[in-house]
Amino acid sequence: MPSPIDFYFDFSSPYGYLAAQRVGEIAEEHNREIRWRPFLLGVVFKTTGAQPLLGLPMKGDYAHHDLARSARLFDIPFTIPKRFPFMSVSACRAYYWLEEDNAEEAQDLALALYERAFGEGKSIAEPQEVAEVAEEQGHDPEEVMAALQNPRIKTRLKSEVEAALKKGVFGSPFFIADGEAFWGYDRLEDLGMWLDTGGW
Amino acid sequence: MPSPIDFYFDFSSPYGYLAAQRVGEIAEEHNREIRWRPFLLGVVFKTTGAQPLLGLPMKGDYAHHDLARSARLFDIPFTIPKRFPFMSVSACRAYYWLEEDNAEEAQDLALALYERAFGEGKSIAEPQEVAEVAEEQGHDPEEVMAALQNPRIKTRLKSEVEAALKKGVFGSPFFIADGEAFWGYDRLEDLGMWLDTGGW
Repeated sequence: MPSPIDFYFDFSSPYGYLAAQRVGEIAEEHNREIRWRPFLLGVVFKTTGAQPLLGLPMKGDYAHHDLARSARLFDIPFTIPKRFPFMSVSACRAYYWLEEDNAEEAQDLALALYERAFGEGKSIAEPQEVAEVAEEQGHDPEEVMAALQNPRIKTRLKSEVEAALKKGVFGSPFFIADGEAFWGYDRLEDLGMWLDTGGW
Repeated sequence: MPSPIDFYFDFSSPYGYLAAQRVGEIAEEHNREIRWRPFLLGVVFKTTGAQPLLGLPMKGDYAHHDLARSARLFDIPFTIPKRFPFMSVSACRAYYWLEEDNAEEAQDLALALYERAFGEGKSIAEPQEVAEVAEEQGHDPEEVMAALQNPRIKTRLKSEVEAALKKGVFGSPFFIADGEAFWGYDRLEDLGMWLDTGGW
């Protein structure tokens, strides 16, 4: 089996959400596993000096329009949560905690969190809100709440963010397949073509 | 005949160059005219606070890699000129001066200028260099040199840049088709799909 595709995203990234809705399809089409790698774009932005997309003059307006248009094209429910941008630390920690035992369940939680935020427009910023979504997925909310404060998990998230930075990940979504990097929701087709052809 | 597609670009934008190589094909496929609208991204960046792409931390490295990869995919000769980024005021003025008489000849000049810069890696920043390329296209270089200082042409370029800003153009390449905006070289496929379907 060929090596997995790394899928980097921030839970508060709307293009990351759109990518998350389609990445499973790509995995199946190409018989590749996807390693979901949530990270904290805010930390990366401190290094790069970049700013959150939707707040940028002109580009922000365009992005609002383009996000809705991109979602419509694939019939993906889409809305921007009232509270936006939002902290995604708790969502990330819950993901990495679950992943220790079961990567698939962690991915299911990630999708459920994303859908709560950008499908339903609800908040996933607070620990209790993350625990609630996890409970709907069959996890014990008290265990989740404890995990969010677990020093091992905190350290794990930090080292994941550092690892992403080291690999040159500066945006969300961001894919690395066989050492080749693709940035942006609009590069899913290129990623697929790369996997089909082995590169060019 | 349906309305033309506006194609906004800066002569010093490498993704604009790649788009310029393919935009004619899109025009033909969809039986649409393209109105080439060179503008000054530097002026727009003063409004938006954005920075030149290739100089950005991390994103710049990625863009270098992605530009070469994107060019290879379509067999487009590609290099970054030694002098980069460069002033594109003279190239823009020459374009709008020629366009007063003959839009097609202006487009041919624009393509030739782009190919000199990003195909051959030569400078097109200086008035004489622009006049040289124009001469190769059959224009009188002295007339071109005079046009570059012509107050009417200077004013024309200023008003084109203002018009682009007003339409929300914040990057290069940028397309507006039937009122719908598409930003980026990686949105050519979306633009084509929009023209095919009439939108979604």
